[in-house]
Amino acid sequence: MTAAGAASTALLTDHYELTMLAAALRDGTARRNCVFEVFARRLPPGRRYGVVGGVARLLDAIEMFRFTEADIEQLARAHVVDDDTLSWLADYRFSGDVDGYPEGELYFPGSPILAVTGNFADAVVLETLVLSVLNHDSAVASAAARMVTAANGRRMIEMGSRRAHEEAAVAAARAAYLAGFSATSNLEAGRRYGIPTAGTSAHSFTLLHDTEVDAFRAQIAALGPQTTLLVDTYDITAGVRNAIEAAGTELGAIRIDSGDLGVLARQAREQLDALGARNTKIVVSGDLDEHAIAALRAEPVDAYGVGTAVVTGSGAPTANMVYKLVEVDGRPVEKRSEHKASRGGRKAALRRHKPTGTALEEVVYRCGPGRPRPELGDHDRELQIPLVRAGQRVDGLPTLEDSRERLRKALVSVPWEGLKLSSGEPAIPTVFV
Amino acid sequence: MTAAGAASTALLTDHYELTMLAAALRDGTARRNCVFEVFARRLPPGRRYGVVGGVARLLDAIEMFRFTEADIEQLARAHVVDDDTLSWLADYRFSGDVDGYPEGELYFPGSPILAVTGNFADAVVLETLVLSVLNHDSAVASAAARMVTAANGRRMIEMGSRRAHEEAAVAAARAAYLAGFSATSNLEAGRRYGIPTAGTSAHSFTLLHDTEVDAFRAQIAALGPQTTLLVDTYDITAGVRNAIEAAGTELGAIRIDSGDLGVLARQAREQLDALGARNTKIVVSGDLDEHAIAALRAEPVDAYGVGTAVVTGSGAPTANMVYKLVEVDGRPVEKRSEHKASRGGRKAALRRHKPTGTALEEVVYRCGPGRPRPELGDHDRELQIPLVRAGQRVDGLPTLEDSRERLRKALVSVPWEGLKLSSGEPAIPTVFV
Repeated sequence: MTAAGAASTALLTDHYELTMLAAALRDGTARRNCVFEVFARRLPPGRRYGVVGGVARLLDAIEMFRFTEADIEQLARAHVVDDDTLSWLADYRFSGDVDGYPEGELYFPGSPILAVTGNFADAVVLETLVLSVLNHDSAVASAAARMVTAANGRRMIEMGSRRAHEEAAVAAARAAYLAGFSATSNLEAGRRYGIPTAGTSAHSFTLLHDTEVDAFRAQIAALGPQTTLLVDTYDITAGVRNAIEAAGTELGAIRIDSGDLGVLARQAREQLDALGARNTKIVVSGDLDEHAIAALRAEPVDAYGVGTAVVTGSGAPTANMVYKLVEVDGRPVEKRSEHKASRGGRKAALRRHKPTGTALEEVVYRCGPGRPRPELGDHDRELQIPLVRAGQRVDGLPTLEDSRERLRKALVSVPWEGLKLSSGEPAIPTVFV
Repeated sequence: MTAAGAASTALLTDHYELTMLAAALRDGTARRNCVFEVFARRLPPGRRYGVVGGVARLLDAIEMFRFTEADIEQLARAHVVDDDTLSWLADYRFSGDVDGYPEGELYFPGSPILAVTGNFADAVVLETLVLSVLNHDSAVASAAARMVTAANGRRMIEMGSRRAHEEAAVAAARAAYLAGFSATSNLEAGRRYGIPTAGTSAHSFTLLHDTEVDAFRAQIAALGPQTTLLVDTYDITAGVRNAIEAAGTELGAIRIDSGDLGVLARQAREQLDALGARNTKIVVSGDLDEHAIAALRAEPVDAYGVGTAVVTGSGAPTANMVYKLVEVDGRPVEKRSEHKASRGGRKAALRRHKPTGTALEEVVYRCGPGRPRPELGDHDRELQIPLVRAGQRVDGLPTLEDSRERLRKALVSVPWEGLKLSSGEPAIPTVFV
C-alpha cells in the first residue's frame, strides 16, 4: 500500500463517509443490510473496452483499513464525528463480502465490477478507498492494454514514474505489467510486486563524461556489453558508431529518445547491420502513446519505452467508476432524478460468446435469493468471483501472472473492430436483463 | 510522504539512476561537481502559466531518501548494482545544495524551477523522486489555480480523492489548497497538512432511508442544521422543500450534484428565498472544471465542489518537467541533438514588472562565480530561493499558508489576458540572457 507497507489506510477517506456513518449509527439505519456496486456509467471517450486493475491492491488496502489510536485521536481533534462514532471506528474491521470482476477482466459500461455486501456502516466507509484504487489502476491498465495491442508482440518497458505521483507510479507500474508490459523502471514496483525492472541510461550520463565514447565505455565496464546505450545525445550516426566501437558487435541494444523515431530506427538498423551488429536491438522512447507505437509497426524497432502516456492513462487518467448503493434490506434502491439515474438491485454478469470464442455481449442480471442466473451457454462465462467472505480474503485468488494471462485471453475474444485504436463504440453491448 | 510518514523513499526511483551511479562510481566521474536543473520545455497546450507545487513535500522526501537495510537487500537480490555501489548507497544521504522557485510561484517555459548542486552521485539518484513530486503537485496546483480564478472568490471544496490514486489524492488535496481551494474532503490531507476538511453526504445516505425527509432528519440530528443536505436524489423541488421541512430556515446549505446546475441553482435559490431560507447556501458539484465553474458565474451559487478535474490536472495530469544535467565541474553541458536541445549552465531567474506591478517577462540568466545577476529594478524580483544547504533544509522556508498568499499575489501581477481560460500563449515571455 505505502512504501512502509504497514500503515493504516483508514484516513485515505472522504470526510462525508464518516459523517454519514455517524448519522446512520444514531438513527439505527447503519445496521441495514446493503449492497454497494462499483461500475462505470461509460468508458472514456472513444474507448472500446476497459481493463479491471487494482483488485489485489484493494484487498490489501481493505485489510489495512483499521482506525489506529492515532487515527482516532486525529478525528477527535478535528471534530469530524462524535465520540460514539469514534468508539465504533476504533473496533472497525470490514466483516462483509466482496464479489467482483478479477483483475485483467474486461469491463464495459454498466458492468458490475465490484459488489460490496454488508451493513451500511461496514460498507459505506470503504467507498473512497475502493474507488481510488480501482479508478487509478483500471485507468492505467486500460491505456496500457491498447499500447500492448499496438506493439503487436514487441517488448514494452514502462518508464513513466517521473510523470506520476511517487506512489501512484508504483501502482501504475503494476497496472502496466498486468496489461502485458514486460518490465518497469520503478525499483519499488520490483520489490513490492516482483515485476522485472529495467533501465538504460540518461543523457546526463553522457554529458557527465568528456566524450560520448568515454560514457559508453564506462557503462559497458559496469554493466557489460548486453546493456542498452543511449545514442542520441549528440549526433545519432556518430552515436551508433561510438556505441559499437565501445561495446563491439555484441552490444545488447541502442536507445533513441528523440526525433523522427521511424526514420532514425531504419537508419540505425542499416548502420548497425553494416557494422556487423546484427543482433543489437533498437529501443525507442520519447512521448510514445498507443498511436505512435502503432505508427512504428513497420519499422525495425525491437522495444518501446513508454512513460507519460501510460502512467496518465493516455488521456483518461481516471476510470470514472462510482460506488453506488443498489440494495437495502433486500429491496433495490436507485437514484430517480433525471440525470445520473442508476439501476437498483444486486447484480452479477456473464459474457456471451460465439462458438468461435468471439465475445457477443455483456449480460448484467439481478441476482440474489429467488433470482436464478440466466442460462450459461457452452461458450459463456460468469464474470464475478468471490473475493472476500465475512471479512476474510478468499483463498486461491488469481496472482498477477494469472491476471496477465486472463487479459491476454480476454483480448483475443474481442471482436476485431473492438481492438481498433480509433474512437468508437464499446466492443460489445451491455444488456440488462 | 506515505500514510505511515516514516518510510524510506529510496526505491521510488528508476532502475537506471542506480546503474548510472554504478558506472560513474567505477570510472570516477561520480565525484564530478554537477548542477541538475528542473524545468518544463513548454506549458500544457494552451495554458498561460504554471504553478509550482510540491516543494515542501519534496524536501520531506529527500530527507527520507536513505537506503535502509531492507532496501539494500532488495537491490542485491534483484542484481540491480554491484556490491561497491550497494556499500555507497547504504551510506547515502544527500549532502548538496538545492535552490528553487518557492511553492505558489508561477513558472513559464524554461523557468529554472529547481537547481540541485552536488557531485554526480549525490544528485543523479534524486532525479525520479524530484520529478514525481513536482510534476504531480504542479499539475494539480496549475489546474486548481485556474479554477479558483474562475470561481471569482466563491468557496471551492476539493473532493476528488476517489478519482485519484489513494496517496496521490492526499497530495492533490494539498496542491488544490495551495492554489486557493478552501477545504478538502480528504481526511488524511487534514491530518498531514492541516487543511480544513469538509463534506456533505452521498446519494446512498438518502437511499438508505425510507424517505428523503428521514435521511435529512438523521443528518441534522447528527450534524446540526448548519450541515449541507444533498437534494437531488429524487426530485429537486421536493428535495429543497424536504430539506427546509427537516432543518428549518437556518439550514446551512443544499448541494445539487447533477443536471443543468445553473438552471437548478436559480430555481433552488428562488424556492429557498420563498421558504424564508435566505441564508441557506447553494453548493454545486458534478463534473465541474474551470470552464463549467466560469459558466456559472452569474448564477446564485455559493460554493463549488470539484472532483475529477482538479485531481487529474484538468487535461494535463503531469507538468512534464525534466531534470537535466546543465553543468559539470563548472562548465556548461547541453544535449546537442536536433531535438530536445537543452541550454547549458547553472541558471537563475528574475521576473520584471511594470511600475504598476504587472509582470513583463521572465528573465533567465546564467549564474555562478564571475557571473553577476542582471540589474534588479524596483519592481523586479528574484525567483529562486535557497532550499537546502549541504544537505540541510534551510530554516524559515515558506509555510503552506505563505505559499497560498504568494500565489494569490503572483496571479494579481499577471497581465489580464494571461488569466483568460481560453487557450493561448504564456502570459509573459521567457527571455534567456
